Amino acid sequence: MVNFKGLNACDSFASLKKTSRIQLHNLLTPGRIEDLWIAHAAGFSYCYAFAPVDDLIVERLQALADEQQLIEKYRMLAEGAVMNTGEGRMVLHHLARGRLGAPVVWKGQDMDAFYRDEKRRFYEFAEKVRDGRVRSSAGRPFAQVVQIGIGGSDLGPRAASIALSRWAITRKRARLTPWFISNVDPDDADWVLSRIDLSETLFVLVSKSGTTQETLANETLVRERLKAVGLDPDRHIVAVTSNSSPLAGNPHYLDSFFIDDFIGGRYSTSSAVGGVIVSIAYGPETFEEFLQGAHEADILALEPSLKRNPVLMDAMIGVYERNVLGWPATAVLPYAEPLSRFPAHLQQLDMESNGKSVSRAGLPLSYSTGPVVFGEPGTNGQHSFYQLLHQGTDIVPLQFIGFLANQFSPDINSEDSSSRQKLVSNLVAQMVAFALGKEDENPNRLFSGGRPSTLLVGEELGPKQLGALFSHFENKVMFQGFVWNINSFDQEGVQLGKVLAKKALGAIGRGESSGDIRLDALIAAVYENAKHHPRADS
Amino acid sequence: MVNFKGLNACDSFASLKKTSRIQLHNLLTPGRIEDLWIAHAAGFSYCYAFAPVDDLIVERLQALADEQQLIEKYRMLAEGAVMNTGEGRMVLHHLARGRLGAPVVWKGQDMDAFYRDEKRRFYEFAEKVRDGRVRSSAGRPFAQVVQIGIGGSDLGPRAASIALSRWAITRKRARLTPWFISNVDPDDADWVLSRIDLSETLFVLVSKSGTTQETLANETLVRERLKAVGLDPDRHIVAVTSNSSPLAGNPHYLDSFFIDDFIGGRYSTSSAVGGVIVSIAYGPETFEEFLQGAHEADILALEPSLKRNPVLMDAMIGVYERNVLGWPATAVLPYAEPLSRFPAHLQQLDMESNGKSVSRAGLPLSYSTGPVVFGEPGTNGQHSFYQLLHQGTDIVPLQFIGFLANQFSPDINSEDSSSRQKLVSNLVAQMVAFALGKEDENPNRLFSGGRPSTLLVGEELGPKQLGALFSHFENKVMFQGFVWNINSFDQEGVQLGKVLAKKALGAIGRGESSGDIRLDALIAAVYENAKHHPRADS
Repeated sequence: MVNFKGLNACDSFASLKKTSRIQLHNLLTPGRIEDLWIAHAAGFSYCYAFAPVDDLIVERLQALADEQQLIEKYRMLAEGAVMNTGEGRMVLHHLARGRLGAPVVWKGQDMDAFYRDEKRRFYEFAEKVRDGRVRSSAGRPFAQVVQIGIGGSDLGPRAASIALSRWAITRKRARLTPWFISNVDPDDADWVLSRIDLSETLFVLVSKSGTTQETLANETLVRERLKAVGLDPDRHIVAVTSNSSPLAGNPHYLDSFFIDDFIGGRYSTSSAVGGVIVSIAYGPETFEEFLQGAHEADILALEPSLKRNPVLMDAMIGVYERNVLGWPATAVLPYAEPLSRFPAHLQQLDMESNGKSVSRAGLPLSYSTGPVVFGEPGTNGQHSFYQLLHQGTDIVPLQFIGFLANQFSPDINSEDSSSRQKLVSNLVAQMVAFALGKEDENPNRLFSGGRPSTLLVGEELGPKQLGALFSHFENKVMFQGFVWNINSFDQEGVQLGKVLAKKALGAIGRGESSGDIRLDALIAAVYENAKHHPRADS
Repeated sequence: MVNFKGLNACDSFASLKKTSRIQLHNLLTPGRIEDLWIAHAAGFSYCYAFAPVDDLIVERLQALADEQQLIEKYRMLAEGAVMNTGEGRMVLHHLARGRLGAPVVWKGQDMDAFYRDEKRRFYEFAEKVRDGRVRSSAGRPFAQVVQIGIGGSDLGPRAASIALSRWAITRKRARLTPWFISNVDPDDADWVLSRIDLSETLFVLVSKSGTTQETLANETLVRERLKAVGLDPDRHIVAVTSNSSPLAGNPHYLDSFFIDDFIGGRYSTSSAVGGVIVSIAYGPETFEEFLQGAHEADILALEPSLKRNPVLMDAMIGVYERNVLGWPATAVLPYAEPLSRFPAHLQQLDMESNGKSVSRAGLPLSYSTGPVVFGEPGTNGQHSFYQLLHQGTDIVPLQFIGFLANQFSPDINSEDSSSRQKLVSNLVAQMVAFALGKEDENPNRLFSGGRPSTLLVGEELGPKQLGALFSHFENKVMFQGFVWNINSFDQEGVQLGKVLAKKALGAIGRGESSGDIRLDALIAAVYENAKHHPRADS
């Protein structure tokens, strides 16, 4: 029987809190660095030698994972339990990459088959676009594909598209160039449209409900721009939406591919939300490999032992850092330029999932939940915010990601070493520097050390590895949500802003009262204060 | 007489800490929203009605600003005092946009004249590139300009180039397209080079010392790629460097423009570091307007009264949030897609300047200094990490930035309102939602509120406004550094990693020992664990 209870109700958490903390300086022997590795999916390995845990702490984290029944809950979720309690929904993003247990049947429909059928449909469509059977209204083959979506319909697919852009070029799989429009700020769409030739551009409109304000506003903008140059918008846009949305089966789109309420936006890169654009840009086989890597990592995450389950270990170390050591933020540092937007995806994934203050049963919590997540690629970050990470007054635990090979090749040598070797040398140097610090007579040059990190390292970043990375962090967030006994799959915190924005829009656009005196006062003050100044271009 | 002392030595800080905290819910009347605005430079206005301060707290923040002599210290800095104590250097980025007091003379040289002369030289060079008098080695006019630099030679100039790209197009000032290469990961450079035609590309190599590892490695890569297509690298690269660097006056560059040790990387967008690429891409007049906006904001920042000095108010509110309320992170949320990389610039500016644990005299501090800074443009962030900001267990104070007009025009209407109106309605709605929250029977939909913010709002984002924004945050960081009695102008925390990376590189590239057994163990383990897996493409 699975039992849901808060972190503070766990005996194992009480003993974890009493366990002596470690001194990384003393603990970090060569033997530890050699030993504390866990084999991961898709060729990755996970190192936790630089994490603030010793054998006893790991044992108690294991006890906490066991007491909170993390693997059992993961299995329940994978087999279709209603784990998104607030919204009364199943959580099926794992199923989009492969089955992990018993079939999931909903209203008589095999959900596995649903995801597979949609995938087959968009793979076929992608092949037609790629080989020129589907062409623009000007009769030209499509050369650009622009996703219009926001949040999960943007960040994950964008991060994935950037991550694979170089890889796809070197593998001769890059056929169409992917672009993204997300912000309701029209300077977003107009900028993208200024860079491309509309007569060779296909748009992928992504909105589950078919009512997302930003996405519909951008669709209107795009349709006007297409019409203005004599193109037929209906022949330039495909929709990704739920089968009950106004966009579904609508003749104003080339085609529509379906998603459902069981895959939340931030988990949807594995569905048609990420699959359509990746398949069109880089080929269905590329997206299929992405799904395989994610599925491989999903299977590995079923392992109950922390020492053999890298994502479970990673999740529990994060809980220890958050709830015992009390650290409020985490940095993710990919030493890989292709992962330049992966931190932005993780920021949504983690903060939107676990930035909650009530339990899954709706009771207030007495402990901290999800941290602030931020990051930029290394080595760039080293020349930016690492100063604070090394010598600031707070400790920020770090998650490094690295690879031993380039996507583009060959590399070049300068001063007797390749750029790749320089990149890897920086990564390992930083881990050691953060952990051990350095004594110095000059207090400005003293590094206290004791700043922990973990590492995910692989040979090379391809679609399979990228899928495993997406899975890793999704499952990490899921496990942490189980530990905290929260619902990681809703996002009620975004609703109030939407409601007030609608009221504000009436007040701004039509001069009405918003119905809220503070909102009215702010709108009046904003326009008064910004407008009495001369225009920027005068 | 100016006196340097720690925050905890300030009587005014002791009384500030004793002052009752406010309840934003009760305090936030329409009158307050109307009143708490401060006129800023370049047409901006600053609103602090939603900040967690009342009259008494502002009064005590003023007392603290006075006791720490913030304006006096700013004047000292602007007039050439050695405020970068650790490195024994003046801090002159303000001077690059205009004089604020007495002339600064160093070794007989008028530093004002130095910056002006360099500016005139690169303006002339920019005009020659723009009108085709300077051409590529293939005889073609340059159409692309690629900056090679990292950290401050990348983030600020990149943020500024993106911010002005649309504006420059609509004003017909966009002549060359700017690109950036920063990461030592060769997948960065190779990606950029795959997008452009080298025969029409000019590179701007930026390294003050002329020895930055990443930048030199990327220069080598670029030179090899230029040679490989029969171009003469010496006729495709200009240098921005100090006049004592190996790059200065070197015949292997088309020209060299000088910077000096008195402008730190993260403050250098106002110097040749940002000026060369912006002038080449968008015209000298565009960069000149950027400097004017910054200078205007610099002048305003000399005002001693918080209530008339928006940046001083902003800095002191940040100190209150960090040192009295104890909040460890701050989010910056520009409702402007053109500012998409401005938060990354601020992350460096703030965290590298104020992520310090010792005083300017080198003594350990007993209070917190700089916070974690992160952010993404709105409305994108609303569909991402705002969940945690609204309903997470920690409070994160917010800094909103907004504009009333587009850079591109005209806007389009959908559902009776323009995209711009939707964008502004979201911004104001979020401020109200964060501050006031919402009661709800459903605990999942309850918003506790009490989450404070400030707002910088302007009519439109042009170069002058952008300059004022750069100045605002530079001066905010400077004032906070003075309050904390730290040196905001060095970055010793980046040195240890550099030293260890050099050792690691020997071990990786030449199979030597690094001289550090933990580093050797990590290198061996990384290669062992990542390499025993099959290659990604097999």
